[in-house]
Amino acid sequence: MMPLVMADYTIGLDLGGTNLRAAAIDASGKMLDKISGSTNFIEGREAVLNDIVTGIQTLRQRHGVTELRGVGVGVPGFIRIREGFITNSNNLPYLENFPVRDEIERRLGARVILENDANAAAMGEKWIGAGRDVNDLVLLTLGTGIGGGIISGGRVLRGTVGMAGELGHTTVVPNGNPCGCGNRGCLEKHASATAVTAMARLMHLGENLTSKDIDDLARQQGEVGDKARAIWRAVGEALGIALANLINTFNFPLYLLSGGMLPAWEFFAPLMLEELERRSFTYRATKDATRVAQATLGNEAGLYGAAYLPWIET
Amino acid sequence: MMPLVMADYTIGLDLGGTNLRAAAIDASGKMLDKISGSTNFIEGREAVLNDIVTGIQTLRQRHGVTELRGVGVGVPGFIRIREGFITNSNNLPYLENFPVRDEIERRLGARVILENDANAAAMGEKWIGAGRDVNDLVLLTLGTGIGGGIISGGRVLRGTVGMAGELGHTTVVPNGNPCGCGNRGCLEKHASATAVTAMARLMHLGENLTSKDIDDLARQQGEVGDKARAIWRAVGEALGIALANLINTFNFPLYLLSGGMLPAWEFFAPLMLEELERRSFTYRATKDATRVAQATLGNEAGLYGAAYLPWIET
Repeated sequence: MMPLVMADYTIGLDLGGTNLRAAAIDASGKMLDKISGSTNFIEGREAVLNDIVTGIQTLRQRHGVTELRGVGVGVPGFIRIREGFITNSNNLPYLENFPVRDEIERRLGARVILENDANAAAMGEKWIGAGRDVNDLVLLTLGTGIGGGIISGGRVLRGTVGMAGELGHTTVVPNGNPCGCGNRGCLEKHASATAVTAMARLMHLGENLTSKDIDDLARQQGEVGDKARAIWRAVGEALGIALANLINTFNFPLYLLSGGMLPAWEFFAPLMLEELERRSFTYRATKDATRVAQATLGNEAGLYGAAYLPWIET
Repeated sequence: MMPLVMADYTIGLDLGGTNLRAAAIDASGKMLDKISGSTNFIEGREAVLNDIVTGIQTLRQRHGVTELRGVGVGVPGFIRIREGFITNSNNLPYLENFPVRDEIERRLGARVILENDANAAAMGEKWIGAGRDVNDLVLLTLGTGIGGGIISGGRVLRGTVGMAGELGHTTVVPNGNPCGCGNRGCLEKHASATAVTAMARLMHLGENLTSKDIDDLARQQGEVGDKARAIWRAVGEALGIALANLINTFNFPLYLLSGGMLPAWEFFAPLMLEELERRSFTYRATKDATRVAQATLGNEAGLYGAAYLPWIET
């Protein structure tokens, strides 16, 4: 008798700013198991590599009957995809220019694919999220910074070395706020959670307000509410410029926004869509075929996307 | 004895603002024959369709021994690629929303592919021009307007309906010069030949100066030369913003500029590259793998690119 053949699976891993999450996911996109935990990033390379490998092995042991087809690892920072290392990461400097992929592969004895976290999230949304009905989409992740992921023809658009999709650093205000990247007026300096906090300070609303705080304030009447709503309108304008440029560039069917600022959608989306309408004739001409929408997988998008990579990368 | 088998060929056709050019080109990129002539566009649809078909038939008769594998037609305006019609064209309004492709196919009895002229030019540069060593590039055509063509993975990036690559209408100055597209601060309102003429007027250099005139003036000493050079610096700054955004978005190995403004390269390129350097850390991080250069096929790029399409489109 043949043994019961259980479906093969992959593992997606998301190496965030303060924690590490991993999930075993089958080829249909069903999450079989998931672990998460804080990681002591300050302990350095060996500790993080060990946490990564231990996390994957834990999942693997629970699913030992079936075959692990590969591991996708989403990391914040720039990836040299062919070489399999991270060239620049604010959170994980000790992993820079180290053969991360090969080292994890060696320890696991399994195939590993490294990917930028926003690219992985875009892939996840394409696989089983808000983008599952399209082959082409752009995702903007609105967090402390703004990341971008571009899916073209069902694949991550990576560019020559894997640095494509750095949409948070495209210019929306030529002489706008200075950015650590050397530019001025980067999208993420005008529309991220960090930008919102800075604007709240400039508006004398408070020192260290989160985007959630400012979302709450925007629901108030009176001067404070007016100021908070003005901040969200500024966010909407910046996002509208960026999205108009993306639509004029790609003419894709779907543009997704995700991240912790989505609860304030009602406050920033109207001006965002108004700017878009005004600035992109492509948008106006293809309204039946262009959607700007909220992503649906939340912070699990990156896990799904990372897990999907071993299935499609050859 | 077997007859001498001559190579199959395709025909590329470029439907410009005032003339029509067509070339028979073989699979190796060798131009076998070429015709060009002015077309009486104001006579309307039937006259233009007749000129197109006659031009192609003329080339075909001269190469009757070998097989015509298809025809590519580059047109200024927006294409609905699947449907094979032009949705918007300033020069050829009477061809809008008419089944141009099917009608030409019917009259010729040969396969026809319609493409936007800047996309065709980008394809031509990729095939046998400045981009022949890469599979991914962006072309900006600097003319009376600014067109864009994006080649990704060796293919034209078309988007859902064929409107991708409208890079002349991406925003470089949020509150800049108004554009007929409804936007303000479009790249082509700050860096095209038309923009240069308008700036020369604002600088009191003259009323209807061409970009060639202003290039000549920039070579002068004194106040007039200073003013002309300031215009080119403004052009360089606008192009630098747009290119920085493109590099941050695509991380492609090659960005090409073409068109009638190239002779002024020495006046606009320095500030363009300086802006790029400052605004794109991707550019700084990938300098060994990122080139910004002049296209090499001149106004024949579109002919080559249109002729290439039948070989690669299935």
